[in-house]
Amino acid sequence: MNEAEFIGHISALATHAGARGLTDDVAVIEIGNETLVLTCDMVVEGVHTLPGADPADTAWKLVAVNMSDLAAKGAEPIGVMLGHMLGDGDDRFIEGLQEALEHFGVPLLGGDTTGGGPPRAWSLTAIGRATHTPVPSRTGAKPGDGLYITGPLGAAMLGFEALRDGTEEDSTAFRRPMARLPQGMALAPHVSAMMDISDGLLLDAWRMASASNATFSLQSVAVPISTSRARQADAMRWGEDFELLFTAPPSAVLLPVKAWRIGAVQPAGHSPLVLDGEPLSGPEGLGYTHDKSKD
Amino acid sequence: MNEAEFIGHISALATHAGARGLTDDVAVIEIGNETLVLTCDMVVEGVHTLPGADPADTAWKLVAVNMSDLAAKGAEPIGVMLGHMLGDGDDRFIEGLQEALEHFGVPLLGGDTTGGGPPRAWSLTAIGRATHTPVPSRTGAKPGDGLYITGPLGAAMLGFEALRDGTEEDSTAFRRPMARLPQGMALAPHVSAMMDISDGLLLDAWRMASASNATFSLQSVAVPISTSRARQADAMRWGEDFELLFTAPPSAVLLPVKAWRIGAVQPAGHSPLVLDGEPLSGPEGLGYTHDKSKD
Repeated sequence: MNEAEFIGHISALATHAGARGLTDDVAVIEIGNETLVLTCDMVVEGVHTLPGADPADTAWKLVAVNMSDLAAKGAEPIGVMLGHMLGDGDDRFIEGLQEALEHFGVPLLGGDTTGGGPPRAWSLTAIGRATHTPVPSRTGAKPGDGLYITGPLGAAMLGFEALRDGTEEDSTAFRRPMARLPQGMALAPHVSAMMDISDGLLLDAWRMASASNATFSLQSVAVPISTSRARQADAMRWGEDFELLFTAPPSAVLLPVKAWRIGAVQPAGHSPLVLDGEPLSGPEGLGYTHDKSKD
Repeated sequence: MNEAEFIGHISALATHAGARGLTDDVAVIEIGNETLVLTCDMVVEGVHTLPGADPADTAWKLVAVNMSDLAAKGAEPIGVMLGHMLGDGDDRFIEGLQEALEHFGVPLLGGDTTGGGPPRAWSLTAIGRATHTPVPSRTGAKPGDGLYITGPLGAAMLGFEALRDGTEEDSTAFRRPMARLPQGMALAPHVSAMMDISDGLLLDAWRMASASNATFSLQSVAVPISTSRARQADAMRWGEDFELLFTAPPSAVLLPVKAWRIGAVQPAGHSPLVLDGEPLSGPEGLGYTHDKSKD
């Protein structure tokens, strides 16, 4: 079965309210007088990494993708649990892990090591504290809300291409992605829905609109791009810049962080996503899925 | 680097008190007015599974090993996060996962799916609530305490051999291990140290004695065995029965669950472990490590 079928089947087991029906990037549980936000991401050699990738970059990205999921929920990181397959370059892996943990200010709490592979696989589970409740979901966008992103797209794509093609261009944005933790915490009280862009702006906008039972109308020209407009279509299908995508009601005129308004939320129409006035026919080709080559 | 070297290096990053210096099976964090217990285990195809293993059994064991870590800390399961690599037999994987989650009474909260492999790898992170604080550790055994286990050893070994050799013997104990959750919760207020036996009684006793800076004196004849005494030495080196190993002060004369007294804690001597009066010279050959063939 493919990923969508697997998630469809397994969501029948995720009956706990905190699982959010497996339609969000995180789980949310109330414990004591706190609300915890939990997320888990895996990285697999050759699937999420280029041949010859520096294990330090792999470790950084493993931390960053989880921190980005916490950021999208306005959560403050508490700690991470690592699942690690031992192998070549573990000294570099530890260096990159240390750099990322220090950068994001999150401690390693524990984990597991094992042999096996290639390919090697790593998992990271991050635990965060909600700084605002209700914790932002993907489902709250309402007609009339504005649609926003927190920063320009395309730098990770260029970094990936530089590494793939062996050019001299800067690949930092791809190798060492950021996570918008301060922005997420600042935005959480103001948004109606929020997620991180991990699989491509258009695909993730499609998903958030579907989850909210709404239609997002998006203007390409309003989307900030790190590169030339000639690559705009590609940049809107690349996710690894890990900017936040969110909706906010018209009352939120003064957002607490810099953001670009790229469209508006409309009542559900024939398609969840209208791009430059044209309803899109399906999510295919809008970004990356795990059944294909990346992430 | 091997597992011990990796953990040695990475433990420098685990400065948070809740990480317990990576010397316990779990992390312990205070959040709100609760104490959370976190554990993560990976299962890798071909490392932890036999060729042709039923994916339903793989899923069961993935859940059981994590539940056993919670059991050893007297924790009540709250939920699990799954890292899953898609592949053949995912329908059976989901069936086994469902059976295990229902058996242990723990919900699936979320996770991640990806492509990649073979070999496939899975991770599970389990979150539990401490039912007693301080949460039992490996470090609290004191001279004069008794040394106990909660049940007989050897059934998992026989089940493994039946599967490996294709005989008709019952392999359930190996395929569908239990986790001693009720026993762990009942024992937590009474023990001075506790862990689950996942890598072999002798190896895990060695580790707990070392962590406690004590010597455990263990009597073979007192160790309950599921099989003939001819296999006693092997059964004491096999971990996957997931019984609990604990120490309790002499005042704990009436333990709340059935347990076998197999030895006593002494002041630290030349070796952490004395077996039938003979100090052992090192941990080699006492159980399984991840650098070798299993778990």
